[in-house]
Amino acid sequence: MSSQRAPADTVGPGAPGVALEVTEALFGEVRFDAAGLVVSVVQDADDGTVLMVAYMNEAALRRTLETGRTWFWSRSRKEYWQKGETSGDRQYVREVRVDCDGDALVVLVDQHGRGACHTGERSCFYRTLGQGPGVPAESAAK
Amino acid sequence: MSSQRAPADTVGPGAPGVALEVTEALFGEVRFDAAGLVVSVVQDADDGTVLMVAYMNEAALRRTLETGRTWFWSRSRKEYWQKGETSGDRQYVREVRVDCDGDALVVLVDQHGRGACHTGERSCFYRTLGQGPGVPAESAAK
Repeated sequence: MSSQRAPADTVGPGAPGVALEVTEALFGEVRFDAAGLVVSVVQDADDGTVLMVAYMNEAALRRTLETGRTWFWSRSRKEYWQKGETSGDRQYVREVRVDCDGDALVVLVDQHGRGACHTGERSCFYRTLGQGPGVPAESAAK
Repeated sequence: MSSQRAPADTVGPGAPGVALEVTEALFGEVRFDAAGLVVSVVQDADDGTVLMVAYMNEAALRRTLETGRTWFWSRSRKEYWQKGETSGDRQYVREVRVDCDGDALVVLVDQHGRGACHTGERSCFYRTLGQGPGVPAESAAK
């Protein structure tokens, strides 16, 4: 099926997503916090870019799995929102992963339209706070 | 400098990190929540794998930037912890990014040792809750 997948930008604007195959036993291991939320990292399925971080409650996670498009809970507006509903920048879901202790998700998507950020940037993480070499070069010979 | 970088696994176990160059104006735009925390997505700088999600308070973020290794605040234990301090699975930081509204970070690291997860998996997100095709194939021709 993946060989038939169209680039996200060639999909018609109203194209619905496809329901995911769900491992129900694992759904029960998702731990929602005191506010009923789980943090969700949305990542580009093709190139691995972290596009955005948002929150799902149980119903938003269900809708995401059932519709194949991302749904979140807005903590500020206190309402459900479907990514791209107004902007057209939809996210079609390929995979949802759960972390070891069940309190975070990674959502792998085909990003439609301009990108994930309301500013017009592709990723919300377009600003660099700090940069360094990572593993120190002087340790290489040890 | 990057051409001199050693693979993370070849660095001696006690190797310190290198302080990051910080854009101070951007530090002031990080929005810590009511509990004083900001969610931090740790991503492999080489292959883009999301390794783990953890939380930093202001001091943990400062320590991360100053030491070039990841520091977090444990919500359950209510204490600072440096990744790899006990396991040896250290994270050397190459870059810290801030999202558009300042309430989430992406931390790009060279992962040392076995990986990021206490289970022995490289990534904490080793379980798949749902899978699907992403962009629907039948929309390709539209």
